[in-house]
Amino acid sequence: MDDFTELSVRRRRLMGAKLHLFYDPPLHLVRGDGVWLFDAAGRRYLDAYNNVPHVGHCHPRVVEAIARQAGQLNTNTRYLFAQTVDYAEALLALLPRGFEVCAFVNSGSEAVDLAWRMAKAFTGRQGAIVMEDAYHGWTEAVDALSPISAPDRPLAPHVRTLPAPGTVNSGAADAARAIASLAEAGLGPAAFIVDPSFCTNGILDAPDGYLADVFAAVRAAGGLCIADEVQAGFGRPGSHFWGFATHDVVPDIVTMGKPIGNGHPLGVVVTRREIMDAFMDSTSFFSTFGGNNVACAAGLAVLEVLQRERLQENAATVGAELKAGLIGLMERHAVVGAVRGKGLLLGVELVRDCGSREPATAETRRLMHLMRDAGVLVGNEGRHGNVLKLRPPMVFGREHAALLLDALDRALARL
Amino acid sequence: MDDFTELSVRRRRLMGAKLHLFYDPPLHLVRGDGVWLFDAAGRRYLDAYNNVPHVGHCHPRVVEAIARQAGQLNTNTRYLFAQTVDYAEALLALLPRGFEVCAFVNSGSEAVDLAWRMAKAFTGRQGAIVMEDAYHGWTEAVDALSPISAPDRPLAPHVRTLPAPGTVNSGAADAARAIASLAEAGLGPAAFIVDPSFCTNGILDAPDGYLADVFAAVRAAGGLCIADEVQAGFGRPGSHFWGFATHDVVPDIVTMGKPIGNGHPLGVVVTRREIMDAFMDSTSFFSTFGGNNVACAAGLAVLEVLQRERLQENAATVGAELKAGLIGLMERHAVVGAVRGKGLLLGVELVRDCGSREPATAETRRLMHLMRDAGVLVGNEGRHGNVLKLRPPMVFGREHAALLLDALDRALARL
Repeated sequence: MDDFTELSVRRRRLMGAKLHLFYDPPLHLVRGDGVWLFDAAGRRYLDAYNNVPHVGHCHPRVVEAIARQAGQLNTNTRYLFAQTVDYAEALLALLPRGFEVCAFVNSGSEAVDLAWRMAKAFTGRQGAIVMEDAYHGWTEAVDALSPISAPDRPLAPHVRTLPAPGTVNSGAADAARAIASLAEAGLGPAAFIVDPSFCTNGILDAPDGYLADVFAAVRAAGGLCIADEVQAGFGRPGSHFWGFATHDVVPDIVTMGKPIGNGHPLGVVVTRREIMDAFMDSTSFFSTFGGNNVACAAGLAVLEVLQRERLQENAATVGAELKAGLIGLMERHAVVGAVRGKGLLLGVELVRDCGSREPATAETRRLMHLMRDAGVLVGNEGRHGNVLKLRPPMVFGREHAALLLDALDRALARL
Repeated sequence: MDDFTELSVRRRRLMGAKLHLFYDPPLHLVRGDGVWLFDAAGRRYLDAYNNVPHVGHCHPRVVEAIARQAGQLNTNTRYLFAQTVDYAEALLALLPRGFEVCAFVNSGSEAVDLAWRMAKAFTGRQGAIVMEDAYHGWTEAVDALSPISAPDRPLAPHVRTLPAPGTVNSGAADAARAIASLAEAGLGPAAFIVDPSFCTNGILDAPDGYLADVFAAVRAAGGLCIADEVQAGFGRPGSHFWGFATHDVVPDIVTMGKPIGNGHPLGVVVTRREIMDAFMDSTSFFSTFGGNNVACAAGLAVLEVLQRERLQENAATVGAELKAGLIGLMERHAVVGAVRGKGLLLGVELVRDCGSREPATAETRRLMHLMRDAGVLVGNEGRHGNVLKLRPPMVFGREHAALLLDALDRALARL
């Protein structure tokens, strides 16, 4: 067996055969640098998919912050130290008025689990409203709020879904229906949880006022509104720092994960003091690793780099150019049915036919592999897996957008 | 305001007033090194409490592994890479036959949440059995398995508890009662979850055969047995590498957290292939940060240091000496009612009266502060908070045990 085959076999043996890999055969990675990933054969790939290395793979400033703090002190929030307080202050400064306190955990799943518990403690209600095909994480509580993880499984009795937003604003009516359905079961909404980029719905552009209308209905029924910013947040929309801001709404709780620590495990829940206090009165919450010195040093470094390298501006300019280029490809390739999204989070819907909009699912998967062969990593999203997902590190430049567009043009021609 | 007061005020403002700190006034830490922690005034404290920095605060080998890997590649298990597979292999080599596969997450809470979901998927059952006063984490699902987090709250309908083990082996009868009570509610046990050191019960020495009898009863009723090794594991018992091994039992699932990455957020679930596969057939599990390159490099470094520095042996010899010294203190101080535990996880029960064994709760808290004033950090445990908890980094040497015993002798005299 060669090294690659041996590693694949060992992985299946030691980590199970059913842990999904992106490519078949999988990509054996050994190094990352900025927007580039390198495989064991020394070949480089343009990373147009991974948002976790938000300011670029192995950004030296973040690596240095982690290394320095790991060598100095790494302990827990039962003690007083500066890193976590400084980070909380820096993070809250990026949020609208009203966000007062941070709670620190280790992943987006943990952040949503905690936010969900806070919403229940604060409202005294038990019901949840999420988008159809939503994904918010994998803990038992959050899995119930993530219908796309097991599409054939019935929803939990306390969960209702809203249909994916269309071109007309149906927010008020959709929310009213979900709230009424919860009420029929004797439940009130504790929370509506939403990814403002509607990623797992296929990266959707909701109509103006959609989220504002849903928020108003949920709040009128006594529920809180939670924005899950693991996809949309941290400058990625370009026009705004947060996904919720692109909809001109202010949530009650914001959950953060994925990009927040450039890959270091970190999750944060940000909310109002009254919500945090209601939760802390109901239980004795503590996360052993949450808010540790190293994770907060990583988080602070990410915020510094975002600002110093003007990466939100970069997402706006490069994202606009990339989107224009993708729209240009629609004219050359009938399979490109739509281009959606904002900044450096863009979706390209592939269809078999522009009229019927039949999802080109197999073609999308084939395209991902053709792109990989061309040295560009992209993902896919949506219920039918037919939306090409472009969500690169925020240091993705104009030259990288040009490379991506060129490779995509050629790959589409080969479909 | 001085720096300390200013930091305290900022913490309360930005992280909430109800996030508990160990000491009043709290300890403002700035540096860690081996068994030592240093405060902002330059004073050093002997750390006889923290098990998360398992091989010592800021161990250079672990810091170096984190720094090197963070600078090279940190991505997720949708790609193939060596670090996670190598770590899974090293970890499984430390477990008995039958443990075949690892799943990687970011904390002990996540590990127990995942193990619980696996147990339900594999058994098709919904009931849980835990120890009274158990603590296994804080996600919504695991919080329900952690009665000590909200002692006044009724148990969830699917949860039953076993009384803390006494001096006579009541395992079979206690388990039978819990199983019968679940059956009355129409439920079967999916899992019995136990910390083999019974930490939150007050660090108990269960009678011979206790856990074996509980395991046998739970398995006969179709449930799985989960050992939560976040307290007891990784060589801490001295005589054995795992807590469950001290009871001569083999669980179906082992959950790991706290000490596993020396502070780097990491959690692991280890189990049999059939259990993992049943779970993965039921859903599409994936943890974004779980099993990332850096966390696994940290985990591997911890295992290397444990072996190279013979820290399990150290736990056996230093733990035995420390325990003998603590037993010696019983003769000199009537408040010391019992000394329990194994290796470097020891509990000292403080009582107002040797006959009634009335918990000396306030005295224990005062003792913790006296010890802090003497430059030694210890914790407390148990329902009444009257069990002094000694659980130092594994590099705790004979000289440190002597310092601890001397400080404790003096502090007890001042109570």
